[in-house]
Amino acid sequence: MTSPSRRDLANAIRFLAADAVQAANSGHPGMPMGMADIAEVLWNDYHSHNPNNPKWFNRDRFVLSNGHGSMLQYALLHLAGYDLPIEELKHFRQLGHRTPGHPENFVTGGVETTTGPLGQGFANAVGFALAEKLMAQRFNRPEYAIVDHRTWVFLGDGCLMEGISHEAASLAGTWGLGKLVAFWDDNHISIDGDTAGWFTDDTPARFEAYGWRVIRDVDGHDADRIKAAIDAALGQDDRPVLICCRTTIGFGSPAKAGKESSHGAPLGQDELEATRKALGWEHGPFELPQTIRDGWRANNAGTVREEQWNRLFDGYAQRHPELAAELTRRSHAELPEGFSAAADAYIAKLQADSPKIASRKASQMAIEAFAPLLPELIGGSADLAGSNLTLWSGSKSVTGGDPDANYIYYGVREFAMTAISNGLSLHGGFIPYDATFLVFSDYARNAVRMSALMGAHAIHVYTHDSIGLGEDGPTHQPIEHMASLRHIPGNDVWRPCDAVESAVCWKAAIGRRDGPSCLVFSRQNLAPQARDEAQVAAIARGGYVLKDSVGAPGLILIATGSEVGLAMDAAAQLGDSVRVVSMPSTDVFDRQDKAYRESVLPDACRRRVAVEAGVSDFWRKYVGLDGAVIGIDRFGASAPAEVLFPHFGFTVEAVVAAARAL
Amino acid sequence: MTSPSRRDLANAIRFLAADAVQAANSGHPGMPMGMADIAEVLWNDYHSHNPNNPKWFNRDRFVLSNGHGSMLQYALLHLAGYDLPIEELKHFRQLGHRTPGHPENFVTGGVETTTGPLGQGFANAVGFALAEKLMAQRFNRPEYAIVDHRTWVFLGDGCLMEGISHEAASLAGTWGLGKLVAFWDDNHISIDGDTAGWFTDDTPARFEAYGWRVIRDVDGHDADRIKAAIDAALGQDDRPVLICCRTTIGFGSPAKAGKESSHGAPLGQDELEATRKALGWEHGPFELPQTIRDGWRANNAGTVREEQWNRLFDGYAQRHPELAAELTRRSHAELPEGFSAAADAYIAKLQADSPKIASRKASQMAIEAFAPLLPELIGGSADLAGSNLTLWSGSKSVTGGDPDANYIYYGVREFAMTAISNGLSLHGGFIPYDATFLVFSDYARNAVRMSALMGAHAIHVYTHDSIGLGEDGPTHQPIEHMASLRHIPGNDVWRPCDAVESAVCWKAAIGRRDGPSCLVFSRQNLAPQARDEAQVAAIARGGYVLKDSVGAPGLILIATGSEVGLAMDAAAQLGDSVRVVSMPSTDVFDRQDKAYRESVLPDACRRRVAVEAGVSDFWRKYVGLDGAVIGIDRFGASAPAEVLFPHFGFTVEAVVAAARAL
Repeated sequence: MTSPSRRDLANAIRFLAADAVQAANSGHPGMPMGMADIAEVLWNDYHSHNPNNPKWFNRDRFVLSNGHGSMLQYALLHLAGYDLPIEELKHFRQLGHRTPGHPENFVTGGVETTTGPLGQGFANAVGFALAEKLMAQRFNRPEYAIVDHRTWVFLGDGCLMEGISHEAASLAGTWGLGKLVAFWDDNHISIDGDTAGWFTDDTPARFEAYGWRVIRDVDGHDADRIKAAIDAALGQDDRPVLICCRTTIGFGSPAKAGKESSHGAPLGQDELEATRKALGWEHGPFELPQTIRDGWRANNAGTVREEQWNRLFDGYAQRHPELAAELTRRSHAELPEGFSAAADAYIAKLQADSPKIASRKASQMAIEAFAPLLPELIGGSADLAGSNLTLWSGSKSVTGGDPDANYIYYGVREFAMTAISNGLSLHGGFIPYDATFLVFSDYARNAVRMSALMGAHAIHVYTHDSIGLGEDGPTHQPIEHMASLRHIPGNDVWRPCDAVESAVCWKAAIGRRDGPSCLVFSRQNLAPQARDEAQVAAIARGGYVLKDSVGAPGLILIATGSEVGLAMDAAAQLGDSVRVVSMPSTDVFDRQDKAYRESVLPDACRRRVAVEAGVSDFWRKYVGLDGAVIGIDRFGASAPAEVLFPHFGFTVEAVVAAARAL
Repeated sequence: MTSPSRRDLANAIRFLAADAVQAANSGHPGMPMGMADIAEVLWNDYHSHNPNNPKWFNRDRFVLSNGHGSMLQYALLHLAGYDLPIEELKHFRQLGHRTPGHPENFVTGGVETTTGPLGQGFANAVGFALAEKLMAQRFNRPEYAIVDHRTWVFLGDGCLMEGISHEAASLAGTWGLGKLVAFWDDNHISIDGDTAGWFTDDTPARFEAYGWRVIRDVDGHDADRIKAAIDAALGQDDRPVLICCRTTIGFGSPAKAGKESSHGAPLGQDELEATRKALGWEHGPFELPQTIRDGWRANNAGTVREEQWNRLFDGYAQRHPELAAELTRRSHAELPEGFSAAADAYIAKLQADSPKIASRKASQMAIEAFAPLLPELIGGSADLAGSNLTLWSGSKSVTGGDPDANYIYYGVREFAMTAISNGLSLHGGFIPYDATFLVFSDYARNAVRMSALMGAHAIHVYTHDSIGLGEDGPTHQPIEHMASLRHIPGNDVWRPCDAVESAVCWKAAIGRRDGPSCLVFSRQNLAPQARDEAQVAAIARGGYVLKDSVGAPGLILIATGSEVGLAMDAAAQLGDSVRVVSMPSTDVFDRQDKAYRESVLPDACRRRVAVEAGVSDFWRKYVGLDGAVIGIDRFGASAPAEVLFPHFGFTVEAVVAAARAL
């Protein structure tokens, strides 16, 4: 029995993909058929991983940024020996299976990140590569390159058209991520057809302008040339590498190769058979001869690789026990012992001190208090460090080569910033935070959504949270953003009312290992609120009684952020029957048990007024049709904050009047 | 009295800007001081406009993409003789004045577009330049270059870091927008300091890779060199031009020039005085000697320019009366006579035919029906033409040079697409529509917001509106998007339930001259609903009674889009006391008078169930605390649509059960 040719091995991908798409009657065969030869060379000759343990820390990361070609990844995982049986491939795109339409990191072992929204996988990969570089700087020691892996990313024309590819590539060039290798699937086809009508960039020249090394004109169907290109890509210098692979989409299909018709629809039974003939593939759907299986199987090699690394790590642990313990802790995403208690002590002290400061300043103080305990905390801002207040005394830029580097100057690149946060988080070893003005969360919006979908432990800091931003005007004043961010499933949004709540939300965000938090802070100073110990503890429940009524509440004021002070002042005028609920996080509050929620917002009290300097509709979920909302349902204006709040109706009088009108 | 030097003229900008920022104690003096010399040369020697008529159709368009330098634009408008008195400049950033923190097209005559959110002004400018090119193709005739203007855009490092700059520049290159000239304020400073740490692109090489002509290394403080650069930029070929201007931020300030400290804060009184000395400016704040005023005033030249053009237009109108009438109609944003009646006839016929089709298909049919009447309708999609169904039989690509070009292949560039739509709309002469999957409205989100803030007549088409998208899975299934888009003030969002509602929402969007509409369509087929004439007419009110109860309603089901059919089926089981309200646009419904709203949703009936395949919280504004919502508050899944709807609880049984439980 002759061993299979490289082309035979690649054809296994092609037919697993095309047959699965056919079985699902849905999906994208063209890309897997086009990139199969590249994937075959990369996975069989270079990719350093262990199919038996998809979470091995020092594995190479492989990212399919053109995630619609998901069957390529499932084929690779299956063939390499990951726990992804052929039955799963037969149930491509079906409910309850591990082969969804686009790769999902939370569903399928070996999938590093969820892709499909174009360009973001590429930015995630930049985050992976940055994480590797920084972890290596921090942990490696002579003879112990304990963190030493590459990040491979496949991307298509669509990824390269998206703006985020510009932001991410620019940063990768600036950061010198020499272990990042991107393979451009240059097939001249996107969904609308030949890209000549809408994609005329000189992409190699563009990437050279970012400081990348570009390997041009590689025949993506010639294994030798692919291999030569990868060899040329490795270990030359600290420039990231773009390998430009000329490919034919739907390679092998007599009628559809090179055409958009192979992109996003099954080939059809007849064309599938014709493709089998054309490629000399004699096996039925989902059938693979043993020689092909043997040619792909990577379990043993993976075990050997990880065992070698484990031995290296054992030596490292003997020579550098503290570093090894720290690396283990960070890679397991465990917080340092004592963090929680220290955070609580800090919060208690803040409550005692009760400073009157902007919550963005309180955020910076929280970072200053917590970051020394958390070397995994890595932050940055999209060119607003001095406004977002994201720097702390221990901040060290990642561009300086410092082993303790922990601060990222992202430039004005909100979308890549957020997607890179996702990559840093998914890589492991870091808790990333990023920052911009709340209104510009818009620029990053789908990456915030992806944080939530992927369960990435990322912290998104958004300052200048309302018309309180003032003079910069309506382009910079968030109105709909709080509500819109809260609507993203799984996203915890916080808008604290003072320094204590600010510290609590930071603690919660750091402790929330399985999803993102958006921490929303004010530009302007906020009055501190008095609380007893139980109230301080209750902040973490998302909503709590800040000032209670005498007896059962006859009226409940619900507020967040800067409007909590307003509600408290109104309550003072409204009398003893008024309860004030501070609701820094509706998401967290809604997760509390029913008894707790009822204890805060008793169903019997329907005289409720919500106050938040944002769209009012959101608050109907708490005040219903019979309550009132003091909100803002139009765009803001350019003027000092102290002029704007009364102008838009945020006054004690207005709250009192609304309450009395109920 | 000697006439002032160019530097003197430029210094007038510098001090108007610095003094206004000082007076406001807020703002950005650095950019106006840095770009003053460039602006002086451009406006005094090249910019073709008429300060007496900011709406003159053939004016050059000037866009300040780095909008934080708004005082540059206000100074220019004031000095050139626009209706922007010095009192307005003295009240920079104050409520009720025409000098807001960032330039706002709806506030200040002569401001073409609202800028501040970085990079979008640049993309708007690409839209302006495309509009000019297409209008010229369509309307110009030998001897009558009736549409013939340039688009000038100032942009900073921040704009160039943003991803949207990549998307927009790429398209401008592909489209050959030779009358677009961009001035890069290359000052090496952004908010966080020297850009060397986060902006290392070779920007000239990058723009050459997009097919731009790049004029490098221009001293942005040397009027002769600026002039030479602009001369070199004009009329060479059809490549857009980037002029790279080396400038000093805060030019003239002894202590702050070249530093980020001049970027976003007042210079301070002392430093202002030092700057006066350094630049030899002997005039007090807001004082300008007559020679300076005379050197700037452009009213007469503007009048001459417009009168010349008017004479040209008179000749054109004689030679080409139909073209002239059509140009006048389009430039005045008037719909063709008879459009409304024709649309109503089409809608009535659809109601009679009642096809069972996907609403995206119904959208395409509406375009097919309306577009032949509307040559100003120009559309496109972000590489999803065949999915969004945005092509119609008369579509002609804008890349082909066709005088009737009306279709834009945007490639995978949602953000620039949307901002370019805004530019096309603001230019005048076009009603743009753009399209992508609903979930990827995220990528364009801030440009949608800007449509609404600016009152741009842009139509955003979003298909694949829910889990009904099916197999592509949660990355592609919108959950929170309907609610989030509705929260944008001034944005009309429609989710029609069948072909008739789809046509009505297209008609409404076309007729809405002062703001954007988001039209949200299904992938899957939707059953047609029966309606009498009054019901058909009521669709345009955003919400209406689709099926009424016998007697006063005992229960109201409210639904949108694909869930209307579900509600109707549930109503059939629930009996005669049930009313079904179809609510294709909550935004439009909420604008109806109280009596109408009460007639649809009588306050007395609190047994209400809302059904929409999106986040449930939004619907509490209609069902209150005591109603029920059948929604989806988690991410979707990859599976066929017919599997997903029941999986996520969208069944007749669930609606019936929820109603009975009230």
